[in-house]
Amino acid sequence: MTLDTAWPDLCDLLGDRVTRSKSELAAHGGSESYFPLSPPDAVAYPGSTDEVSRLVRICAAHGVPVIGWGAGTSLEGQAQAFEGGLVVDFARMNKVIEIGQADMDVRVQPGVTREVLNEELRATGLFFPVDPGANASVGGMASTRASGTTAVRYGTMRDNVLALEVVLADGRVIRTGSRARKSSAGYDLTALFVGAEGTLGLITELTLRLHGQPEATSAAICAFDKIGDAVRAVTETIQMGIPMARIEFVDAATVEVFNNYSGTTMPLVPHLMVEFHGSGASVAEDARNFGEIVADHEGHGFEWAETAEDRTALWTLRHHAHWAVLASRPGHRAVVTDICVPISRLAEAVEATQADLDAHGISGPILGHVGDGNFHAILLFDPEDAAALAKVKAASDRLVALSLSMGGTSTGEHGIGIGKKAFMPREHGEAWPVMGLIKRSLDPMNIFNPGKLAPDAH
Amino acid sequence: MTLDTAWPDLCDLLGDRVTRSKSELAAHGGSESYFPLSPPDAVAYPGSTDEVSRLVRICAAHGVPVIGWGAGTSLEGQAQAFEGGLVVDFARMNKVIEIGQADMDVRVQPGVTREVLNEELRATGLFFPVDPGANASVGGMASTRASGTTAVRYGTMRDNVLALEVVLADGRVIRTGSRARKSSAGYDLTALFVGAEGTLGLITELTLRLHGQPEATSAAICAFDKIGDAVRAVTETIQMGIPMARIEFVDAATVEVFNNYSGTTMPLVPHLMVEFHGSGASVAEDARNFGEIVADHEGHGFEWAETAEDRTALWTLRHHAHWAVLASRPGHRAVVTDICVPISRLAEAVEATQADLDAHGISGPILGHVGDGNFHAILLFDPEDAAALAKVKAASDRLVALSLSMGGTSTGEHGIGIGKKAFMPREHGEAWPVMGLIKRSLDPMNIFNPGKLAPDAH
Repeated sequence: MTLDTAWPDLCDLLGDRVTRSKSELAAHGGSESYFPLSPPDAVAYPGSTDEVSRLVRICAAHGVPVIGWGAGTSLEGQAQAFEGGLVVDFARMNKVIEIGQADMDVRVQPGVTREVLNEELRATGLFFPVDPGANASVGGMASTRASGTTAVRYGTMRDNVLALEVVLADGRVIRTGSRARKSSAGYDLTALFVGAEGTLGLITELTLRLHGQPEATSAAICAFDKIGDAVRAVTETIQMGIPMARIEFVDAATVEVFNNYSGTTMPLVPHLMVEFHGSGASVAEDARNFGEIVADHEGHGFEWAETAEDRTALWTLRHHAHWAVLASRPGHRAVVTDICVPISRLAEAVEATQADLDAHGISGPILGHVGDGNFHAILLFDPEDAAALAKVKAASDRLVALSLSMGGTSTGEHGIGIGKKAFMPREHGEAWPVMGLIKRSLDPMNIFNPGKLAPDAH
Repeated sequence: MTLDTAWPDLCDLLGDRVTRSKSELAAHGGSESYFPLSPPDAVAYPGSTDEVSRLVRICAAHGVPVIGWGAGTSLEGQAQAFEGGLVVDFARMNKVIEIGQADMDVRVQPGVTREVLNEELRATGLFFPVDPGANASVGGMASTRASGTTAVRYGTMRDNVLALEVVLADGRVIRTGSRARKSSAGYDLTALFVGAEGTLGLITELTLRLHGQPEATSAAICAFDKIGDAVRAVTETIQMGIPMARIEFVDAATVEVFNNYSGTTMPLVPHLMVEFHGSGASVAEDARNFGEIVADHEGHGFEWAETAEDRTALWTLRHHAHWAVLASRPGHRAVVTDICVPISRLAEAVEATQADLDAHGISGPILGHVGDGNFHAILLFDPEDAAALAKVKAASDRLVALSLSMGGTSTGEHGIGIGKKAFMPREHGEAWPVMGLIKRSLDPMNIFNPGKLAPDAH
């Protein structure tokens, strides 16, 4: 059974919205990360849930793997067809279906990107807060359980997906959750599909929680000579219940990259970048309280981004970190690692990582979502040097091992795909085969995104 | 296979901590709700995860149902052994194992109650916020995905359980989640066991999120002539991002009960009871802003609970509602229904419920967690009148049907047990048999809490 036998039925169903053209296959064969190109056998652009259901039935009948595709911004190879098959690109299922103003929720198709969604929400006074940096599709964000800079205040996709419509491996369409804010009615299937990376089903609709656009926003940056001081300042801020909307850490190496890339003149020491959302009075008070905590922990260079323009400049600096780091070494590529540890271990984890990278002569600026204990190291390598990728991957592996030894996780927000799969037995122990039981109960033929995240069938 | 054949092995394992004494069976045969007494065949008091694992292996080998028991406060019969078997009472596994001050988390055994936990946390400046009213065990609260008055600010058990240790049907012990604040590493097994009502495994340890005790707290009560106005005031408050810690609704019938039970002199109209947590300045500002919104929506009788004593009196009034309502009709019992609808439909749902109860001559005060769209009706019946229970159950069923027709759920926080199981096919449609697939993949012999929540095996 191959795509060839399924092809006539797929063409009957989708016409010219299923294609095997070289350029389409190439466009769906790579990712933003370091994995080799792996063009799928075909690409489909369904326009409705019903079409997704039908194409899944066809692929199931012919044993063709089915891989969901949002914006192609995942970092662990989640959307690449390493075992061949049909990539389902949700670009045509990109509508905002219904905004629930009073309920502060929105029903969307999976292909809408978070930036387009927020554009459509602008006039409502509401916004969708989850911000992984890339302009990802919300279906992809749900599938990787994405988060980003605002998770410390608004949560991750786990917290902001209320309900899903999902096409299962036999083509059945199910709805999980509801528009109610909470429920104790049965197993939490919504949470099961969020983060499943398309290995249990294809998400065809999402109901998302929205939040009120803050009346006032304030942002600031400050410097610390020691990472430990920065982390202690963050811990105290959280314990005091000061409601930070963002609290980001960048190390000295990242600051150097910022200065070179954006012409800033920040001192070459670790920094925190913070944002508060609330009323005019509350953000002023939050800022004052935070300033005092910073001073108590040897922070300095405290600077407010007072205007909207200053704030935009601050967060653009942060969001462009990935590209700024790449630009610092022309011709290089990067392995972007992502671990998350208990906050009490964060300073130690960052310092151990820096020491490890130094010892191995690897350039790897470190930055991350310090309020969650989540950080990234952007490990640069020269793709012309055959040994270089293996060297940085080994460093990334040591970093994951470090995280697990500290009671952390191998990935805070980038997911497993194929990049982190080798660590799953170590992270989950006896719970790893349990994930296999669930995979096989929902997708016994292993047609959804085979080889990713879940244990291999046996 | 019955308990008789398993008995010698259970006695070898647990000695006098497994019992068939009449009084123990009777003490574990009922609940706070209206279900008939159903004594189990035996009661075990394991002292460790290893003992739980061994007793599960013994029961599995002999086909004996295993039912977890926390504090016996669940409302839908979740902990009752309607099909016989061994009740596992976690009273001896009630330790706070480790408080993570810097990480704001705590590792506990399932038998600790929320009040004891908060007592142990008092000196740390941290607290565990989930408050279902009853002094439930945290294992039971996780198993029913409990929430309560503070969910609008701090979330439900879904949001506050970071990690679990669970004993599976074959005696295997797994750990789900980690102490990291977030993770994208695999299926969210923690979320799967939270709310599973002991049908997939027995929770033997929990890692819970803690929150900083607020620096300042303010509370207030206010009256509205129309329910719709009260709900609109709540909606606007949430949209403005005013961080309410609690926002509770009580209808006029509940107010009358309060007045009779506690000697208050509140006007007989719907009321909101609210609480704000934050800094001194922020709670004052929140209170001022909320007061303005209340005035905009025809609210009146706005009164601050300025002292800690006043606040305690306010919330004691609310927490004792269940007993106050029962006391209003000596000799009566109650079916406590629990639905959760999108907030936009809440006023309509409450009014339709009142009209339905009036039309059928049922006394049923209504109160609930209005910030979540979740409310309860305490439907009183005379246990001496054979037809009365059927009549209030029919009313409860109509209420669930109403909720589902509004895009809500059959239970916001009480769970399914056997009381709401008949509604699961209607609420979940094609997703209901999917829950059966998961149940059978993890508990193929159906030894965990048979007959509850999950679809019956076929």
